[in-house]
Amino acid sequence: MEADDGGDGHRGGAVGDGPTRADRARRVAHVLRGQVVRGAFPGGVLPDERALVAEFGTSRNAVREALGLLRDEGLVERRRGVGTVVVGRTYEHPLGELSGLAEVLQRHGTVVNEVRAARIVRAPGAVARRLELPEGSRAVYLERLRRVDGMPLSLDCTYLIPEVGEPLLALGPERLENRDVFELIERAAGRPLGSAEVAVRAVVADPATCAVLGMTAGGAVLAVDRLTRLADGRPADLEFIHLRGDRLTLRARLDRVREG
Amino acid sequence: MEADDGGDGHRGGAVGDGPTRADRARRVAHVLRGQVVRGAFPGGVLPDERALVAEFGTSRNAVREALGLLRDEGLVERRRGVGTVVVGRTYEHPLGELSGLAEVLQRHGTVVNEVRAARIVRAPGAVARRLELPEGSRAVYLERLRRVDGMPLSLDCTYLIPEVGEPLLALGPERLENRDVFELIERAAGRPLGSAEVAVRAVVADPATCAVLGMTAGGAVLAVDRLTRLADGRPADLEFIHLRGDRLTLRARLDRVREG
Repeated sequence: MEADDGGDGHRGGAVGDGPTRADRARRVAHVLRGQVVRGAFPGGVLPDERALVAEFGTSRNAVREALGLLRDEGLVERRRGVGTVVVGRTYEHPLGELSGLAEVLQRHGTVVNEVRAARIVRAPGAVARRLELPEGSRAVYLERLRRVDGMPLSLDCTYLIPEVGEPLLALGPERLENRDVFELIERAAGRPLGSAEVAVRAVVADPATCAVLGMTAGGAVLAVDRLTRLADGRPADLEFIHLRGDRLTLRARLDRVREG
Repeated sequence: MEADDGGDGHRGGAVGDGPTRADRARRVAHVLRGQVVRGAFPGGVLPDERALVAEFGTSRNAVREALGLLRDEGLVERRRGVGTVVVGRTYEHPLGELSGLAEVLQRHGTVVNEVRAARIVRAPGAVARRLELPEGSRAVYLERLRRVDGMPLSLDCTYLIPEVGEPLLALGPERLENRDVFELIERAAGRPLGSAEVAVRAVVADPATCAVLGMTAGGAVLAVDRLTRLADGRPADLEFIHLRGDRLTLRARLDRVREG
């Protein structure tokens, strides 16, 4: 990375003006953010400013600004006498498999679902259309707040077709608290799942969602829209999932499709 | 969905307290957000408040609050004499294939890359380790702002191993402006790509990134960390990509892996 004095002896083919301090800070933050998220710092303590200045070949001010960006994101904090430390931990969700979040997270800690709603509702028109239900049909609405080791991680709002959702309601709240929706659908409702269409966006969470997820106002969430189909292709489960941006990373492995 | 008066004749198995207005607004917003993003409203005009009240079986206040949430996200705006309209358009990126963003977006409009940096740098230690380069090795740093039909969509900051990056620098800025990095690597550097490991997070963009992307301060971005390998497995391309949350959706299709 460029030194603040504008030359590091390696420049070739430079295009455009030299970067501003904000640009340099941003570039340092890119690299550090990835390291924090992957747990690359032993003991969760970041190198001191002097070491980061040397590593990135940039100014102390750019390093400080980069650490400030990570603090603003809730990833690190400065602790007196220790330095900059990683706050909390980050969980990962593989995007390449169709798994319920709990199925994945229970590998990492104790998952508890707080059931905030579980009832029969009249499906809004747009929900009915996506679930291929007749206009005005009923659906089962489930809303669950998911905690891992006590920390809220996601708020899942789920519309189920009646033949899948009603057997779940009959199980009672306790089973809904301890089981993944996918597992419930497959075991309790006896319907094997097929595939899901997933859309992921980054959204600044509304104040109500921030409060429920225990985030400070104005924080970012991954807003996941997931329509899951039964093995026979019929849509069964439409979910709107909000995942804390500061605590969850989606991971995928992609393969290059050869042309021709 | 529940009516504000607390009953729609369909309740069964209700768990927990009735929702607050913020909860009702949030649930309306979940459904409308998905419709906006999928282009479900003819002419980009949302149904009027009365129709939404009827569709969701909720109060006018909850509908207004839901529309306010979508306005805050920059998805819709209120236009006098017309109603609530979708602002701009949203682009989609399939996550299931390893494609450069430009390869995907050029199906939708004219893609132009503004090259903000293209030079040889000393790779920061963490970058060198991920690219499996010796400590202190040089790398090629590319920074490009991508516009589709004039609208900034993503800021891509890329570290390339020298054997792949240096032939790209030699091409000059014009080719870097018009071509995807993946295409350049495969054609100009003559190195077929294999697979990539992708991590996606939601982050509130820092002020500098917001300014570059033409977003209002405090907006959310998808922060994508992507390490792409050559067909022989060697890492070649480490990218930190920031995608405007209000303009880009990642899509994937997932298949259920049968147990046992």
